[in-house]
Amino acid sequence: MEDVDHLAFERNKAQFDVGEMKIVWAGSREGFELSDRISRLVASDPLFRKDDRVMLDRKELFKNTLRKAAHAWKRVIELRLNEQEAYKLRFFVDQPAFTDLHWGMFVPAIQGQGTDEQQQKWLPLAYRMQIIGCYAQTELGHGSNVQGLETTATFDPKTDEFVIHSPTLTSSKWWPGGLGKISTHAVVYARLITDGQDHGVHGFIVQLRSLDDHLPLRGITIGDIGMKFGNAAYNTMDNGVLTFDHVRIPRNQMLMRVSQVTREGKYVHSNVPRQLIYGTMVNVRQKIVADASVALSRAVCIATRYSAVRRQFGSHNGGLETQVIDYKTQQSRLFPLLASAYAFRFVGEWLEWLYTDVTERLQANDFSTLPEAHACTAGLKSLTTTATADGIEECRKLCGGHGYLCSSGLPELFAVYVPACTYEGDNTVLLLQVARHLMKTVSQLGTGNKPVGTTAYMTRLEQLMQYHCDVKKAEDWLKPNVVLQAFEVRAARMSVTCAQNLNKFSNPEEGKFFNRLLTYKLYEIVLVADLFSWYVMVERRVGMRSGFQELAADLVEAAIAHCQLIVVSKFIEKLQQDIPGKGVKQILQVLCSVYALFLLHKHLGDFISTGCIDPKQGSLAGEQLRNLYSQVRPNAIALVDAYNYTDHFLGSILGRYDGNVYPKLYEEAWKDPLNDSVVPDGFKEYIQPMLKQQLRNARL
Amino acid sequence: MEDVDHLAFERNKAQFDVGEMKIVWAGSREGFELSDRISRLVASDPLFRKDDRVMLDRKELFKNTLRKAAHAWKRVIELRLNEQEAYKLRFFVDQPAFTDLHWGMFVPAIQGQGTDEQQQKWLPLAYRMQIIGCYAQTELGHGSNVQGLETTATFDPKTDEFVIHSPTLTSSKWWPGGLGKISTHAVVYARLITDGQDHGVHGFIVQLRSLDDHLPLRGITIGDIGMKFGNAAYNTMDNGVLTFDHVRIPRNQMLMRVSQVTREGKYVHSNVPRQLIYGTMVNVRQKIVADASVALSRAVCIATRYSAVRRQFGSHNGGLETQVIDYKTQQSRLFPLLASAYAFRFVGEWLEWLYTDVTERLQANDFSTLPEAHACTAGLKSLTTTATADGIEECRKLCGGHGYLCSSGLPELFAVYVPACTYEGDNTVLLLQVARHLMKTVSQLGTGNKPVGTTAYMTRLEQLMQYHCDVKKAEDWLKPNVVLQAFEVRAARMSVTCAQNLNKFSNPEEGKFFNRLLTYKLYEIVLVADLFSWYVMVERRVGMRSGFQELAADLVEAAIAHCQLIVVSKFIEKLQQDIPGKGVKQILQVLCSVYALFLLHKHLGDFISTGCIDPKQGSLAGEQLRNLYSQVRPNAIALVDAYNYTDHFLGSILGRYDGNVYPKLYEEAWKDPLNDSVVPDGFKEYIQPMLKQQLRNARL
Ligand SMILES: Cc1cc2nc3c(=O)[nH]c(=O)nc-3n(C[C@H](O)[C@H](O)[C@H](O)COP(=O)(O)OP(=O)(O)OC[C@H]3O[C@@H](n4cnc5c(N)ncnc54)[C@H](O)[C@@H]3O)c2cc1C
Ligand SMILES: Cc1cc2nc3c(=O)[nH]c(=O)nc-3n(C[C@H](O)[C@H](O)[C@H](O)COP(=O)(O)OP(=O)(O)OC[C@H]3O[C@@H](n4cnc5c(N)ncnc54)[C@H](O)[C@@H]3O)c2cc1C
Ligand SMILES: [Ca+2]
Repeated sequence: MEDVDHLAFERNKAQFDVGEMKIVWAGSREGFELSDRISRLVASDPLFRKDDRVMLDRKELFKNTLRKAAHAWKRVIELRLNEQEAYKLRFFVDQPAFTDLHWGMFVPAIQGQGTDEQQQKWLPLAYRMQIIGCYAQTELGHGSNVQGLETTATFDPKTDEFVIHSPTLTSSKWWPGGLGKISTHAVVYARLITDGQDHGVHGFIVQLRSLDDHLPLRGITIGDIGMKFGNAAYNTMDNGVLTFDHVRIPRNQMLMRVSQVTREGKYVHSNVPRQLIYGTMVNVRQKIVADASVALSRAVCIATRYSAVRRQFGSHNGGLETQVIDYKTQQSRLFPLLASAYAFRFVGEWLEWLYTDVTERLQANDFSTLPEAHACTAGLKSLTTTATADGIEECRKLCGGHGYLCSSGLPELFAVYVPACTYEGDNTVLLLQVARHLMKTVSQLGTGNKPVGTTAYMTRLEQLMQYHCDVKKAEDWLKPNVVLQAFEVRAARMSVTCAQNLNKFSNPEEGKFFNRLLTYKLYEIVLVADLFSWYVMVERRVGMRSGFQELAADLVEAAIAHCQLIVVSKFIEKLQQDIPGKGVKQILQVLCSVYALFLLHKHLGDFISTGCIDPKQGSLAGEQLRNLYSQVRPNAIALVDAYNYTDHFLGSILGRYDGNVYPKLYEEAWKDPLNDSVVPDGFKEYIQPMLKQQLRNARL
Repeated sequence: MEDVDHLAFERNKAQFDVGEMKIVWAGSREGFELSDRISRLVASDPLFRKDDRVMLDRKELFKNTLRKAAHAWKRVIELRLNEQEAYKLRFFVDQPAFTDLHWGMFVPAIQGQGTDEQQQKWLPLAYRMQIIGCYAQTELGHGSNVQGLETTATFDPKTDEFVIHSPTLTSSKWWPGGLGKISTHAVVYARLITDGQDHGVHGFIVQLRSLDDHLPLRGITIGDIGMKFGNAAYNTMDNGVLTFDHVRIPRNQMLMRVSQVTREGKYVHSNVPRQLIYGTMVNVRQKIVADASVALSRAVCIATRYSAVRRQFGSHNGGLETQVIDYKTQQSRLFPLLASAYAFRFVGEWLEWLYTDVTERLQANDFSTLPEAHACTAGLKSLTTTATADGIEECRKLCGGHGYLCSSGLPELFAVYVPACTYEGDNTVLLLQVARHLMKTVSQLGTGNKPVGTTAYMTRLEQLMQYHCDVKKAEDWLKPNVVLQAFEVRAARMSVTCAQNLNKFSNPEEGKFFNRLLTYKLYEIVLVADLFSWYVMVERRVGMRSGFQELAADLVEAAIAHCQLIVVSKFIEKLQQDIPGKGVKQILQVLCSVYALFLLHKHLGDFISTGCIDPKQGSLAGEQLRNLYSQVRPNAIALVDAYNYTDHFLGSILGRYDGNVYPKLYEEAWKDPLNDSVVPDGFKEYIQPMLKQQLRNARL
């Protein structure tokens, strides 16, 4: 009975080889096998159960997280898992924890910014978790503007130490994950001051807590910043607040790979090019894009399976009602998200390649592709996280009332996901960076600086400005080239329009500034995480209100158009590869068209008003889209099965593999603590007096 | 010190009379005074504090809710508050509770569907809260499709009783608020069966729990359905599950105003027109629209104030950084929401009038405006709740990282609000209803049936089909008529296109069906809450796949266009009234233009591809919009002050009236239970062994 597959009839409809698609989704056979093995390992371990966590209060939840983190680490040791396997294990445990920051930010910061000596000293400790670290950059008053951080690290030549200090309330470190209760150490970003001079923001390794009794060291105040959005979700994490009262650390705990302070207190640069540091950022953002495809695909998997189980309306003569997945409105909301998950997967895969490429070039002192790579990852981080956050919530709504229950898994997925739109660069701020890069690219056309990588299409600007789309019937929209051209034309024209409008805004003075801005050299930039603050700094220094500011909203739209083009083009490129398996490539082609035409329909105003297509062609795209939805329909369940998620990882009754939704929902309800007693706590004090009209004299 | 107003410099910038705007927002001076008085009453009562509730676990939270509900009722009695005041009191307590359903659904159901006798018997008990009722319609397997409900009420002539029964698991009642733990009674919707014949869904008053010991009566199983989205939020409510095992109730507990079962078991109709019941629905949805403006304005108030406090980038020479509200991207995301809140307020006000009008007509046996009123409220419910849910989340993102903290108030506001997109009609299902009404309206043009109310513009269809927008410069977009025409033209043409495409789809057979559908008579409809199930029933009966299905996504877009037109036109109408107060009308005119041009920009594809405007005119609208944002900017803080929300009601540190954000955020953090101890629970068991490399032997 337990083993009935209520969705078997759907699985039978699939027109492609699901096994092969699983490999495509995973990226490789080894990748698939790794994920499959580790996810089952986690799912079968009762200590990793998570169906109870939304009912735990903050303290219980946090303790539960510590327990899971320790157990995960224990399993890593016992099973001698390698780095990749250990990463997957933490991933499938699926509960944000201090270990994410330790492995994801603390260790890479030392790897990227520490000298060889520093690495030799600190990394083995970190690798064995003899110390636990976090990444303490953001402050109560400053997040996006890293250059505005207020914490100071003042060199004291007398003792050969830095004095780390929080001069104001707003300089309190605020947000770092793992900081609040667990980390023994942190990479702290602070303004370096030597001999009264401010050298801007640098990283320092600071011990926070005693390795004996875990109490904060002298001069250090730490706490948790309190509850965050949602049930469980990110409340498993001890995002923290931290203030320093003249805390002393040895000089050699400044991360000195790129710049150093000598024993005498002189600030000097090493011969390591600072651009190396940007490589790390490309890497972090690439991971975020990959995570976006995971989060979105989870939500899509839940909503798709439930839409096939859920029936509503349309029964006649007592027959079965219509599956809601058969309603065209449901399809037009759900299938583009299904396609987006695949699109993000493939662009994430490509970003892995980009990271390798950039790293190799940097090591060969070739910085030529870095600005483009930087802009591209910034843009893709913004695009994919925004679409994923919105997409998860749409999936929740697609499940009707039941999507609002925690047992659907969707509320928690949303709440735990949304901060990705904010951390590692606020999505709007990132798009402004992309826009700046585009404006620079446009302005340099015709000079020696040829656009590279994802901006290479700009070399064909002349052609793109003259292009007329020749779509005459709906099927024309299935041609990859037609779609690609349309996206290129739209993106190029929107950038050009912005550039032209910027010129209108600029008075001669501003014109000069504009040109200056457009020829910036990356190595003039002051360091850390963001090109953006530099731009703003320059603008202000030039001392005038730039057209950039005034046209910012248009610039953001141009940046979005450019980023969408990247995703579409990488999807198309993927399909130019050999993809084995019956029907696999065909259905991916359908999804690629769905993704592109859905965007085209959503942004129809862009496409038509740039003269890229005409209204008739727009409506043909809509017609083709409807057609494509019908082709997705029989394959929908198999397409989400291909993600190969265990029921444990999905964490959703609505998304159960076997589709046995209703009995399980019913069972689950009774587990709520409110059902511990038939008559609820508080009835006697508050409700009975009300019913008995005795409230007037009751003490509440 | 405590009383410093950190936003005083912003308040001084306002160019209009805030006091007068408060009256406009409230709808009347009396309305303002009522809200002002009751909100202060609630805010000053320590028993109504809510800053601690996100930290309570489910049981504590629920008990806290019962306490507040009892205290609120006690205050109502002590202060002899009238109905309106009592409503406001519950409203400002701002914590979903069983009382919402008792007053908002149970009482109105009896008022609307009960006979005079039934009203005389039950209402006094309900008014005094000697019984507590809920509204039990939705089942595990059926929500949107009310006609598909499975619970049965079988008449037993032997005992003159109905036997209420849940024949299947999916027939379990599921979702009703107040049901899980508190209600003593329910209005239960069930299929009426007499003499083996199914008469469809009807309402019954059923006692659920003993008035002595609160235990469920024999044959009744009840529980809570478990945790829902978010911290606190709707988890204060006992949404419940309920099954009946042959539960007997007296015949006179069927709600018999419209149809009755006689002593002999005959099913008969009274002479009360069943349309009367639709009046109730108009009323409920009108309240939802009003609530949307409240929820959105709360979020906007928080984000606006915080955007004026938050500074990021742009400092030079150590001066203050730029307030993020001065960034054009921030404005282009925030100000349309500010304008939307006002727009929804005014359309809500108008809906109040519509409800009165419909009620009067119904009483005079005039049903002519009912279908239009029904479609219009359905559409406005959908439009405003969708925009509000999205808008709250956008406001949260506008607050950067700090918006993710519960202390910002935004996570809870979102989580408690979003189900409004689902309950009282799933928003997509509602738009499909609007679309059907539009198709009917279009098809009847030229017949005797003239479009009424919000569809009256269709009478000018010929003119609208020929219209050319004559905007030549950006300022032209400030003319109300220009905007109104553009929205009318777009809506009309989208409807007409859909109608034409529907015709293409219909084979002769289907054409006949189509015509039949378009001439439905409302009184042929089977009852209860939704016209929709009827449509579907008819479609299925006719036994063919209708073009409606195929074109559903386009139809939904046409419906949205129509609904947006309504909101824009009601805003414009509002401004044709006399509005006193210095600058008040002027700034409202600015907001009206912002709202309309923002929509135009967002849906540019619609406007251009219907030939309603050309690309150049679209870009002029964008230009004008930028201009308008600059006009909103100095008034932004005053515009949100005009909502007159207390800090208690806002429940947000970021949105504090005095702008004293940082010290209060810092204080608040320490209240988290995790900060009760410096070293967290679980450290000894889980973290210490990790740090000491002793995990291998630890028992976790
Ligand atoms: C769950 C979570 C985990 C985190 N973990 C860490 C961590 O481990 N370590 C750490 O150091 N930090 C961490 N952070 C902090 C995070 O990096 C910051 O919140 C993020 O950088 C955004 O900055 P902000 O909060 O200052 O937003 P703000 O910059 O204040 O953004 C507020 C608004 O202003 C706008 N804005 C800001 N600047 C501009 C501009 N120049 N032009 C136009 N608009 C602008 C933004 O678009 C946004 O709408 C975390 C945050 C969260 C939510
Ligand atoms: C917080 C909350 C409180 C509630 N309180 C109560 C209460 O007090 N009493 C009560 O009786 N009920 C209550 N409900 C239930 C609520 O009324 C239903 O959830 C609502 O009617 C939606 O129905 P559903 O859940 O069946 O959604 P479904 O209809 O199952 O929707 C699932 C999906 O199918 C789509 N869909 C369904 N039918 C069609 C169609 N014909 N064409 C196209 N698409 C379609 C929807 O758009 C949606 O995307 C509550 C629900 C919530 C979330
Ligand atoms: Ca507890």
